[in-house]
Amino acid sequence: MNVVVQNIARAAPEVVAGLAECGVATVHEAQGRIGLLASYMRPIYPGARIAASAVTVSVAPADNWMIHVAVEQMKAGDIMVVAPTSPSEAGYFGDLLATSVKARGGVGLVIDAGVRDVRDLTEMGFPVWSKCVSAQGAVRETLGSVNVPVVCAGAYVEPGDVIVADDDGVCVVKHADAAEALEKARARIANEDAKRKRFQAGELGLDMYKLRDRLAERGLKYV
Amino acid sequence: MNVVVQNIARAAPEVVAGLAECGVATVHEAQGRIGLLASYMRPIYPGARIAASAVTVSVAPADNWMIHVAVEQMKAGDIMVVAPTSPSEAGYFGDLLATSVKARGGVGLVIDAGVRDVRDLTEMGFPVWSKCVSAQGAVRETLGSVNVPVVCAGAYVEPGDVIVADDDGVCVVKHADAAEALEKARARIANEDAKRKRFQAGELGLDMYKLRDRLAERGLKYV
Amino acid sequence: MNVVVQNIARAAPEVVAGLAECGVATVHEAQGRIGLLASYMRPIYPGARIAASAVTVSVAPADNWMIHVAVEQMKAGDIMVVAPTSPSEAGYFGDLLATSVKARGGVGLVIDAGVRDVRDLTEMGFPVWSKCVSAQGAVRETLGSVNVPVVCAGAYVEPGDVIVADDDGVCVVKHADAAEALEKARARIANEDAKRKRFQAGELGLDMYKLRDRLAERGLKYV
Amino acid sequence: MNVVVQNIARAAPEVVAGLAECGVATVHEAQGRIGLLASYMRPIYPGARIAASAVTVSVAPADNWMIHVAVEQMKAGDIMVVAPTSPSEAGYFGDLLATSVKARGGVGLVIDAGVRDVRDLTEMGFPVWSKCVSAQGAVRETLGSVNVPVVCAGAYVEPGDVIVADDDGVCVVKHADAAEALEKARARIANEDAKRKRFQAGELGLDMYKLRDRLAERGLKYV
Amino acid sequence: MNVVVQNIARAAPEVVAGLAECGVATVHEAQGRIGLLASYMRPIYPGARIAASAVTVSVAPADNWMIHVAVEQMKAGDIMVVAPTSPSEAGYFGDLLATSVKARGGVGLVIDAGVRDVRDLTEMGFPVWSKCVSAQGAVRETLGSVNVPVVCAGAYVEPGDVIVADDDGVCVVKHADAAEALEKARARIANEDAKRKRFQAGELGLDMYKLRDRLAERGLKYV
Amino acid sequence: MNVVVQNIARAAPEVVAGLAECGVATVHEAQGRIGLLASYMRPIYPGARIAASAVTVSVAPADNWMIHVAVEQMKAGDIMVVAPTSPSEAGYFGDLLATSVKARGGVGLVIDAGVRDVRDLTEMGFPVWSKCVSAQGAVRETLGSVNVPVVCAGAYVEPGDVIVADDDGVCVVKHADAAEALEKARARIANEDAKRKRFQAGELGLDMYKLRDRLAERGLKYV
Repeated sequence: MNVVVQNIARAAPEVVAGLAECGVATVHEAQGRIGLLASYMRPIYPGARIAASAVTVSVAPADNWMIHVAVEQMKAGDIMVVAPTSPSEAGYFGDLLATSVKARGGVGLVIDAGVRDVRDLTEMGFPVWSKCVSAQGAVRETLGSVNVPVVCAGAYVEPGDVIVADDDGVCVVKHADAAEALEKARARIANEDAKRKRFQAGELGLDMYKLRDRLAERGLKYV
Repeated sequence: MNVVVQNIARAAPEVVAGLAECGVATVHEAQGRIGLLASYMRPIYPGARIAASAVTVSVAPADNWMIHVAVEQMKAGDIMVVAPTSPSEAGYFGDLLATSVKARGGVGLVIDAGVRDVRDLTEMGFPVWSKCVSAQGAVRETLGSVNVPVVCAGAYVEPGDVIVADDDGVCVVKHADAAEALEKARARIANEDAKRKRFQAGELGLDMYKLRDRLAERGLKYV
Repeated sequence: MNVVVQNIARAAPEVVAGLAECGVATVHEAQGRIGLLASYMRPIYPGARIAASAVTVSVAPADNWMIHVAVEQMKAGDIMVVAPTSPSEAGYFGDLLATSVKARGGVGLVIDAGVRDVRDLTEMGFPVWSKCVSAQGAVRETLGSVNVPVVCAGAYVEPGDVIVADDDGVCVVKHADAAEALEKARARIANEDAKRKRFQAGELGLDMYKLRDRLAERGLKYV
Repeated sequence: MNVVVQNIARAAPEVVAGLAECGVATVHEAQGRIGLLASYMRPIYPGARIAASAVTVSVAPADNWMIHVAVEQMKAGDIMVVAPTSPSEAGYFGDLLATSVKARGGVGLVIDAGVRDVRDLTEMGFPVWSKCVSAQGAVRETLGSVNVPVVCAGAYVEPGDVIVADDDGVCVVKHADAAEALEKARARIANEDAKRKRFQAGELGLDMYKLRDRLAERGLKYV
Repeated sequence: MNVVVQNIARAAPEVVAGLAECGVATVHEAQGRIGLLASYMRPIYPGARIAASAVTVSVAPADNWMIHVAVEQMKAGDIMVVAPTSPSEAGYFGDLLATSVKARGGVGLVIDAGVRDVRDLTEMGFPVWSKCVSAQGAVRETLGSVNVPVVCAGAYVEPGDVIVADDDGVCVVKHADAAEALEKARARIANEDAKRKRFQAGELGLDMYKLRDRLAERGLKYV
Repeated sequence: MNVVVQNIARAAPEVVAGLAECGVATVHEAQGRIGLLASYMRPIYPGARIAASAVTVSVAPADNWMIHVAVEQMKAGDIMVVAPTSPSEAGYFGDLLATSVKARGGVGLVIDAGVRDVRDLTEMGFPVWSKCVSAQGAVRETLGSVNVPVVCAGAYVEPGDVIVADDDGVCVVKHADAAEALEKARARIANEDAKRKRFQAGELGLDMYKLRDRLAERGLKYV
């Protein structure tokens, strides 16, 4: 059965904003090394670093009908997360849809398929993480669902989950865990800042992490 | 038999120039969603948007002998379209060949294989769409053909066809259909400009394309 | 047995510096078209062009313990070359490790796996050539070796070999052959400069390389 | 946190057995075209057709420690479903582990990575669906979890879900939906048997499914 | 515009039958090393060796509506050749469609996408060459065309062309060239039979093909 | 410079024969988990299990000239190991070359590219491990080398190294280490036979390998 779920729980905006500042690598580590989408998901231009609440869309291959349906469900600060039901490289999304998403306050797109009009999207500052760039058009023939759980690029995403995305890729944080993830991510950043200074001063990870004894015990030979 | 066809029909220069302005996504849609090369064909630098008449080259794997032959067949406004007879990632083409193509008035390269000297090519402003970047050299040992039909990255290209290429990829337009494709592409652009304004104003695709009734009829449930 | 080899032979610094200027495509040709890493090894940002002596690291999949060990073995002008023992896309290396490498005088990373913190690495000007970008963290559980021969992205690399890397990819030069490779590369550049002028003047490769007779003899037909 | 969940709900054995008879393609259709694992998951030998309850295992790349833990959680009629936390092609599982699984009553393995000893496994009649065959050994160094939800080859699998697998691939059925899926699958088979006879008699799908009018209405031209 | 072309020229049945006996490798060589489909096109079971006239089908991704249309256009001795308009791994075709094709006298399927029910198809002796095996269902929503030229797995196929397929893959022969290709293929077989005897007797290719002088002339050194 | 090395050291025949009996997975483990070729190297038919001394061949892409040269260098019990200088899927080798290799006493082929005539090779019982099956013909135009070190499918192979190959893939053993590897492999088999009996009797790996304490110490929770 195809459904559109209209009310979804989202994380608090200040938590989402905090996660954006922390970035994908840090958030991913902070929440226990889970939630990464596959590494083939790449940004269409470098430098974007965002976090946003997921409006999920399950679509038929090369069919973007439900993307039009999903736009209506987006609120300010949301990102659309699109997963086709079988692998596809069609270009489901271009500058017109981005204009519409932007008009609703949406901040970007994550799609396990193709996107097009990437020059226009770049000029608009509308960030997209996608499997590929493709101008191949989509049809509007087959129903799908909006705001149901999806598997996108190997990660399980529920509506309202926080998507963190930057040049390192895309990570999903369960919306119920977002505040805790943020706290841990910030602690991690503080800790890394301290380590960075020590590394800059020439200290080695071998000493900083006290790795030498265990290496010797395991039998590593220096020759 | 290996041949070089010396006289090929090309589309009118003003039609080719018009198609360049329209871009890949629009032209592809305008001509009925055909003619796209595979999405693995990527530009070596962002921002190039061209259209040009194809001088086609069928080459042996890792052999660029026929590319030298093809340069002589290029006229101002042409683009070279290279397809190996079996999959290859060798680097068939670099800055010297680009210099030669440019001296003939050629405007770029589409190659279902590798290219090298990409920093030099970028500085020269010589756009290339390729399967990969590779410095692996090619030999000059086996004959091929110039200006015969080829399948390049999954698309059938005949000599003189118009190649449209930009950040979205590469599309081929039959030279006999180019004028009609341009007309349709321009109509499409006008239509999209109007839609863009309505999207900017917050109108939804659901309403603009009158999709709600059909969705209900098909059984989409809002919950 | 897992070992760390502490003394390795390196090519002379001026030879390494000379190879950097020549670039991957030229050096690869000059040494007889050998030594290229697979074309999937891409720079995380465009424009870097370096040469450096390889400190090699054989690591377990998704385990970066030996990278910490390897940092200590790096000297000014070295590059780390990391090869996992089975295919991996984990992110073994980020800005903290880069800070540490830089503090030792290291100049970059070649890794047949993933890297993360690419925005930070880009800002630091720390060049990386990798199979992918991935934030997926690594563990420190399994021994590997440092400065042993490795196969990295399809190329055989011995410690102290010269790595040449730029926008065209990555090439390895045996350290014992580096001086000869540089000499040949410089000769090649001089030769190419001369050819470039002739190409710019409109001369064809068919004439410059005297290809016409052999083409005719092989049976190429002009129609 | 790494956990082993010891009590999981499973579907009724007769339902599981019924689903095995129906096969992947039918069950997948019957439950609304959901639940398929990626098509790269292939059986190590042809002809196996099973259904079983999933004992899920989340493992570190190239680390099979948790597989040993998971064996203890298997009951008669279970299948192990293994998903690494980042892409891996290591060979986590061979004939010794299969012997152990079999001794517990387990009936097979689904692994989004590599398997080895495939000749022995074939002789044992122990079916495996995997991403690849690889002899590359795994370590036992990093914790994971057993009987937690995993994404395996693009499908979301919860412990106790029914895995249906045959020469067409692998499909997951939520354990709570298994009885309904079986009922629908059996109805589908009855329906297909009837259709098969009509097809054998020469009737066309165009007529059987009454497709002609809609084709004409959409504008299909016969020329 | 979507069309069904009803009358297509086919090669003579005895020519088609002759090409089947020659096999893919021989026919491909005999016609000048052209016409091979990509090597990812694999048979669902070993041992089939056929030749047949192509009924071509251009389909939308994951949409098999036009396959139903195409069945009606098949005659005894035909094979269906299906190419999606953008990459797809859906399972467009299973045992019911095979039953229908067989009832029309069709002899197999070549599809640049997925197939399902492979166990049933194997039992029926209905050979299929496909990109993958997938149970993922297709819809019937979007028009395509039948008996128009298509690019299938990188090869250009026109309706009525002869498809030769066996364990080595798939090759297309222009129907107008089929008789000539058969003649050359048979000559090649006779020639290969003679060579095989000489190879069995221990003669070397170096001597049989008189390669030694040219090797020496090119500078090959024996050390 | 292109060379043919005529005298190479091989491991003792009884050692090679012993390694064949042990199989890839065991030998690979016994020698410290090194030497595996990439998992995409698959046998053309199931069931072959061999070991043989490598005659290595470095070839140009889609060029099999040096394979003819290499045949002459083969002795009874040798296997040919072919690596192209850039990635290729051409079909370098078919039943005529196999006949010639067999006449010399050669026992098989490992090729990081394509092979053809696989039905004939299967009937001949001539085992091949390859990247793909392809009928695409090769030329004889460019020199390469015979019995030089090559990287084949990610593994470094020197002439005379022992190749072990079976349904699990391909592993290389340095010829100087072969006797030691055999000894360790046999010890491993004896050890595995003992373990197999214990597994069959229902003993768990958790107990056999004494894993429970370390799991608890690391913090694994049973819930």
